[in-house]
Amino acid sequence: MEAKKVSESFITMNELVLPNDTNTFGNLMGGRLMYWMDIAASIASAKHCNSPCMTVSVDNLSFKNPIKIGNVVHIEAKVSRAFNTSMEIFIKVWGEDMIDQHKYESNEAYFTFVALDQTGKPRTVPQIIPETKNEILLFEGALRRRQVRLILGGKMKPDDANELKALFTKE
Amino acid sequence: MEAKKVSESFITMNELVLPNDTNTFGNLMGGRLMYWMDIAASIASAKHCNSPCMTVSVDNLSFKNPIKIGNVVHIEAKVSRAFNTSMEIFIKVWGEDMIDQHKYESNEAYFTFVALDQTGKPRTVPQIIPETKNEILLFEGALRRRQVRLILGGKMKPDDANELKALFTKE
Amino acid sequence: MEAKKVSESFITMNELVLPNDTNTFGNLMGGRLMYWMDIAASIASAKHCNSPCMTVSVDNLSFKNPIKIGNVVHIEAKVSRAFNTSMEIFIKVWGEDMIDQHKYESNEAYFTFVALDQTGKPRTVPQIIPETKNEILLFEGALRRRQVRLILGGKMKPDDANELKALFTKE
Amino acid sequence: MEAKKVSESFITMNELVLPNDTNTFGNLMGGRLMYWMDIAASIASAKHCNSPCMTVSVDNLSFKNPIKIGNVVHIEAKVSRAFNTSMEIFIKVWGEDMIDQHKYESNEAYFTFVALDQTGKPRTVPQIIPETKNEILLFEGALRRRQVRLILGGKMKPDDANELKALFTKE
Amino acid sequence: MEAKKVSESFITMNELVLPNDTNTFGNLMGGRLMYWMDIAASIASAKHCNSPCMTVSVDNLSFKNPIKIGNVVHIEAKVSRAFNTSMEIFIKVWGEDMIDQHKYESNEAYFTFVALDQTGKPRTVPQIIPETKNEILLFEGALRRRQVRLILGGKMKPDDANELKALFTKE
Amino acid sequence: MEAKKVSESFITMNELVLPNDTNTFGNLMGGRLMYWMDIAASIASAKHCNSPCMTVSVDNLSFKNPIKIGNVVHIEAKVSRAFNTSMEIFIKVWGEDMIDQHKYESNEAYFTFVALDQTGKPRTVPQIIPETKNEILLFEGALRRRQVRLILGGKMKPDDANELKALFTKE
Repeated sequence: MEAKKVSESFITMNELVLPNDTNTFGNLMGGRLMYWMDIAASIASAKHCNSPCMTVSVDNLSFKNPIKIGNVVHIEAKVSRAFNTSMEIFIKVWGEDMIDQHKYESNEAYFTFVALDQTGKPRTVPQIIPETKNEILLFEGALRRRQVRLILGGKMKPDDANELKALFTKE
Repeated sequence: MEAKKVSESFITMNELVLPNDTNTFGNLMGGRLMYWMDIAASIASAKHCNSPCMTVSVDNLSFKNPIKIGNVVHIEAKVSRAFNTSMEIFIKVWGEDMIDQHKYESNEAYFTFVALDQTGKPRTVPQIIPETKNEILLFEGALRRRQVRLILGGKMKPDDANELKALFTKE
Repeated sequence: MEAKKVSESFITMNELVLPNDTNTFGNLMGGRLMYWMDIAASIASAKHCNSPCMTVSVDNLSFKNPIKIGNVVHIEAKVSRAFNTSMEIFIKVWGEDMIDQHKYESNEAYFTFVALDQTGKPRTVPQIIPETKNEILLFEGALRRRQVRLILGGKMKPDDANELKALFTKE
Repeated sequence: MEAKKVSESFITMNELVLPNDTNTFGNLMGGRLMYWMDIAASIASAKHCNSPCMTVSVDNLSFKNPIKIGNVVHIEAKVSRAFNTSMEIFIKVWGEDMIDQHKYESNEAYFTFVALDQTGKPRTVPQIIPETKNEILLFEGALRRRQVRLILGGKMKPDDANELKALFTKE
Repeated sequence: MEAKKVSESFITMNELVLPNDTNTFGNLMGGRLMYWMDIAASIASAKHCNSPCMTVSVDNLSFKNPIKIGNVVHIEAKVSRAFNTSMEIFIKVWGEDMIDQHKYESNEAYFTFVALDQTGKPRTVPQIIPETKNEILLFEGALRRRQVRLILGGKMKPDDANELKALFTKE
Repeated sequence: MEAKKVSESFITMNELVLPNDTNTFGNLMGGRLMYWMDIAASIASAKHCNSPCMTVSVDNLSFKNPIKIGNVVHIEAKVSRAFNTSMEIFIKVWGEDMIDQHKYESNEAYFTFVALDQTGKPRTVPQIIPETKNEILLFEGALRRRQVRLILGGKMKPDDANELKALFTKE
């Protein structure tokens, strides 16, 4: 199984915010955006490992600016790190007001997906090759984020989370 | 502004998994579930502070067992801690196969919502009163989860995250 | 096949009224609410008999107060009486304005569902045990409502509808 | 305000049963059909009185044959009787399998709608002129069905329901 | 395989323009209307040849008047000409404002569908019998429109498009 | 009003084919794809002229290969020529099977959109600058396609359609 570049899994989506996607302030509802992000992440992960993939976890999804009704939602997703049978996908979202020609950051998140074989069992995924400076940063941070996930999920002891511990203990 | 009990914001939702909610394995897609969880969280937070609320962040959403087509999605949401203008909402999801009379854990997550006034500006929310043992545990963990959010979002220095630091430094 | 309590089939749903669910007055459309009520009734009936169920008839669905956009739709459903292969499900719906902290009755209805076996044929359902005063009232009224259904559907002669006849003939 | 013929409010709808409209047996779900019937009834009533209309009640909706996935849903609706500010709409639904060239009765129902003026208050509706034999039968039965509605809704005493009483007392 | 009349494939649809179907001017979006037109065309073609049909091409879909939110979309479709394994379907769309009692032309288009057998392969369709003057005009124009399609698609040389050539060369 | 490059309006969309988007053969329905293409065209045209745009016509939409359920729909749209108040948008669609790593042409089409000012009236659009060989070909063909549109719509006499006539008369 050959390693793949981050750019091979890169994918963009553009969607229009319609009335039913909005809350009473006319802003895109968080849940509707998460629905689209999950589809983007599922496409990016399937491109990386050429098998169907399933959402395992979502972390650090933070909303900065609400996206207005009638604006475009621009989503970019790419695999940031491959583990054994799972991958971390980094997603970034912008809003775009085409009338005012204004593009603004909306949110970003890390999704984790697992690759499945024909019978629905997890299978090994190709390793990832980060190339740009940003891809390398995301690749390195992925270990730390994974330790947070495992500790908060009760599957790892804080003592074993070396990368994370370093943040607090200045080793 | 009077403090409110956790139980006052408690809400349950039940949904049916229909064909269009599923992936190729006939399991509920993560994004569709997040859409429902976001609505549940938005109702729970509005019940707590009696004003419209907006998603700020989603953390540690982890999927344990996929929910099958035709099964019921059972969602429970409640405010776990109130901060200044924001609240953490704890959500737990079960799948239920009514034919086999089998109920199984699907996932859980922490959503953060901010309360808005009439003009869309953040406003103060009532404090929360945890009563049961589980509510108190969630209440206490909320500080730690908030520090993870702030550190990973670059808004807090690891050194200032006392609750989190304690996990690693055995103070 | 053991009889079951009414409370074992009890189920609640909470939904948010979104723009596309409303008519030109900004009120929830009747058809959208019926869609949700049918899902609630189908869950309640499947909980009672642990087999898939199909809508047979809807009776006396009356709308009292329209539910406003942005409000919560609160639906409660429970089996009110079991017949041979069919069940009557009683559904009650409230609207809730969380900002004004105002909860109001919206409508109620009686749905009849039939239980199906693997091949799609009707199958016997467990008998029901009403416990509270309200459950007993619903249980008793069910016979009368069934006679109305059968007479209006041309499947029973008025003369054979003893419970219904008693209403008009002052036995 | 001039009376109108039944045929002036007559309307047909044709819809295709898609995967998401079906239950686990591949049959159209009752709630989805009710959603379409409500839209058909709302168009028929608006055609009769040229003002927006709102669902008041649904009675005697009985399902005979399930409609299969991929089949066409054929809906016909027309105002069967006008009261003061409300109208009864009669709806009939067929399924059609275009491959087998087979058309089959699915269900029928009586919806009651109220006409609204600009401010959302009920307003008087034009009287109706039934012309065919079937239209006259529906027109006459409407009084009886209305009495059932009022009695079961607790708004009429059985003793005052003359048309209905006649069914049981052979006057 | 017996020829069929145009009227045997005739079908009408009525839909209501809901908030989510509209652009920022409150008018029905073109794409939503095309979705409905495609379903109407698919029903008309299946009625003509009693087999499942698939969209092959759409030509000359021109929008005259936008349809307003809350108005009814009235669609009429019928097979205008049968070729070997494909058919041209003519579709006409009106908007209707029931409050103002105003009906207006919205658009029209020609869709081409191919008939499929059980294995998904194209199969021969019955010939069509145009009866009214309008049906004969549509039938005759179909050849010309087909030549435009084939030339623009690079599947026919302009020299072989006799019907079309006649328009320009006054033969 | 400054002319703009074709590439400034270029936009890509990626969507997943879900169960409800498919016909009985498990292929993407034409109408669902047209809905997405219309949104892509509306975004591309709004990017070109920075004002809301409305569908005017759709021409020569031809389907080559059906897209399978679970596959990705990849849509590319760009303005191919600007007229006075309207623009032609060229759209190309591919299907992608990520498991088999197979990408295939699905269809292409020409949409025409009109630009609107604040009051909903047509407004002048910036001219377009084609740069690549393919962009220049599309730009030149646009005149011919426009003449077909105008002739078939009865708004131009064949004799005045110089570009189109040349195809048939070998001038």
